[in-house]
Amino acid sequence: MTAPLFTLTTDFGAGSGYPAQMKGVLLAAAPDARIVDLSHDVPRHDLVAGALLLEACVPWFARGAIHLAVVDPGVGTARRALCVVDPEGRRFVAPDNGLLTPFLGPGTRTFALAPAPGGALPPPRSATFHGRDLFAPAALLLAEGEDPADLGPPVDDPVRLPWPHAEARPGEVRGETLTADPFGNLVTSIRASDLAGAEVARAEADGRPARWVRTFGDGRQGELLALMGSGGRVEIAVREGSAAALLGGSRGAPVRLVLVGRAGSAC
Amino acid sequence: MTAPLFTLTTDFGAGSGYPAQMKGVLLAAAPDARIVDLSHDVPRHDLVAGALLLEACVPWFARGAIHLAVVDPGVGTARRALCVVDPEGRRFVAPDNGLLTPFLGPGTRTFALAPAPGGALPPPRSATFHGRDLFAPAALLLAEGEDPADLGPPVDDPVRLPWPHAEARPGEVRGETLTADPFGNLVTSIRASDLAGAEVARAEADGRPARWVRTFGDGRQGELLALMGSGGRVEIAVREGSAAALLGGSRGAPVRLVLVGRAGSAC
Amino acid sequence: MTAPLFTLTTDFGAGSGYPAQMKGVLLAAAPDARIVDLSHDVPRHDLVAGALLLEACVPWFARGAIHLAVVDPGVGTARRALCVVDPEGRRFVAPDNGLLTPFLGPGTRTFALAPAPGGALPPPRSATFHGRDLFAPAALLLAEGEDPADLGPPVDDPVRLPWPHAEARPGEVRGETLTADPFGNLVTSIRASDLAGAEVARAEADGRPARWVRTFGDGRQGELLALMGSGGRVEIAVREGSAAALLGGSRGAPVRLVLVGRAGSAC
Repeated sequence: MTAPLFTLTTDFGAGSGYPAQMKGVLLAAAPDARIVDLSHDVPRHDLVAGALLLEACVPWFARGAIHLAVVDPGVGTARRALCVVDPEGRRFVAPDNGLLTPFLGPGTRTFALAPAPGGALPPPRSATFHGRDLFAPAALLLAEGEDPADLGPPVDDPVRLPWPHAEARPGEVRGETLTADPFGNLVTSIRASDLAGAEVARAEADGRPARWVRTFGDGRQGELLALMGSGGRVEIAVREGSAAALLGGSRGAPVRLVLVGRAGSAC
Repeated sequence: MTAPLFTLTTDFGAGSGYPAQMKGVLLAAAPDARIVDLSHDVPRHDLVAGALLLEACVPWFARGAIHLAVVDPGVGTARRALCVVDPEGRRFVAPDNGLLTPFLGPGTRTFALAPAPGGALPPPRSATFHGRDLFAPAALLLAEGEDPADLGPPVDDPVRLPWPHAEARPGEVRGETLTADPFGNLVTSIRASDLAGAEVARAEADGRPARWVRTFGDGRQGELLALMGSGGRVEIAVREGSAAALLGGSRGAPVRLVLVGRAGSAC
Repeated sequence: MTAPLFTLTTDFGAGSGYPAQMKGVLLAAAPDARIVDLSHDVPRHDLVAGALLLEACVPWFARGAIHLAVVDPGVGTARRALCVVDPEGRRFVAPDNGLLTPFLGPGTRTFALAPAPGGALPPPRSATFHGRDLFAPAALLLAEGEDPADLGPPVDDPVRLPWPHAEARPGEVRGETLTADPFGNLVTSIRASDLAGAEVARAEADGRPARWVRTFGDGRQGELLALMGSGGRVEIAVREGSAAALLGGSRGAPVRLVLVGRAGSAC
């Protein structure tokens, strides 16, 4: 049997000691566990950034992986804690604050963790660190084969982020910037599927022209670019520079792609 | 037999290449070793911050873990290098500069690493990187079952940090701030045990009122808070803000808790 | 059989999600793989810094390790992608941009990765993330025992950085600063072998006197120092300070060592 694989996504900071405490708990109970940090540098309390990071990373892991995600400004308050199983069988534990929005589609099953004294999932020891005291123990139960439905009651109304979508119009697609990566590349709300196979003639970001290219090196130094990013979303970039710095922010700038027809079609 | 588990705590920076070199040495000799980074972001040469990070993290690891801690401004000088075994059987290697202060209580056994040419522990190859050249080899010997007493002579006077303690007075406990986490939450010298079961009526930090709460989300945005932290020490915090920034520093600010009686008592 | 060991070196940022995606790909195909981050904090697009980091770290790993290095401003352009096997049998995959310069000595075999539809190494899915889509799959093939020569045609002219060397003159050695570590210590182009066993009488960096010492603690607080670094190169340092800050930069400052004769010789 393969050792369990856990991924961790937090806004704690890799060197804060908090991720290490979660790993100590996981390894004490599952000594052969493999643990991968997706990120501990999610901007503090930034649920959109955390959700986009999960969206980009999770598909690359084997389906048996168990994903712990803790960006949790409401820790210790009445906010629910979730266990989520998506249609592909991937399992998540996270606060019920929208962090798992990309995975809350049709066919997803969602449960509210119900810790109880004397139960398999005891009440958290602290009110301020559920990553260590609630989500890690819940993930361990899943790794031991516990049925998610046994962790707590089903949830019909998990919190969803007001998730920006792209808007398709005749001959164009409109969207907006959502978050920046450490290079200052801006991830947008326009997905590959929004292009529906059409080719992009030209692009605009925050009202400025952005040249549509295949990869960063196709641009000129300092030039504003738009391209299909490796995570399946259109990105705004500057060759060997920062689009976030150029546009003066990482979220909410309008993006417009002018299309020239479906690839492979005769128009 | 379980693979050895090593933890690493340094002020080297995760991306400096130095932790990686330590891992290379450990894995070359113990290919099935598990290695967990507690932190490589201890503020440079800050022994108090390193000691507090170890205090917070170590208890969450299985007792068989071997903890390498290297915050070492005196590397290569005459400062001793230690192997420490605490009463619970946890093993540490670290410079003798106070970094292990939280674990130097009664019942702890302490030895000075005594590398020798041709011995099991050879003299370090470099004068500037004992993490790789002395502490990692010593940790490997421990993992192979070497008796700590065989690594060098016992030490009766390991360096201890002038470790701040809380002061209990009638109806109050006084302490001070010790270090900040990446959120700007301030860890103090007041431990859960210093409250002796009493409840906190109100708190002050650096002369300012701080509301005693159970968790961050119980505060108002920007409000100065005091709470029992997840590491068993009172913390000073600001909801969705930085107490370190508000107080203008991370160490030495006086903290005062006014108590209202023992929980569960009749007073 | 030992589980494969991969090391990762990038300029992506540890928390960007990009290293995590590479790990997902590696672990999905090689569930028992061990993965060590050498660094994800190579200064962006800084090939010299990346090459020096690899030079410092790689020798400490077992020879069976497979090293993935991705500092790749030309990703998706016509730049070649390499598989390199050095005379000691260590294997690397990296873009052909000089990042592997320290390992391109005599006896090294170099091949250009030749992905092909339907082949063992399919064309990369993205034009912007070859770390995940090309180098990780190539590393997996190597781990499965694929002969590097089967990954693509031999390359006779891999890109080499204009790698600074030291210049030996009678009674002195001259070089320059190359890069800074996170402490601000400056790694130079002067290697231990350039001293040919001579002892250093005094040193200069950027025209300023630097005292030759054995280790940092031998200096006075704030004093400019020169010493033999743990990576086998002369370093310029400031005790409990930053030489990079003092000299106002991390690269290109002249360094001069005045020698006093060969150690152990009679002169």
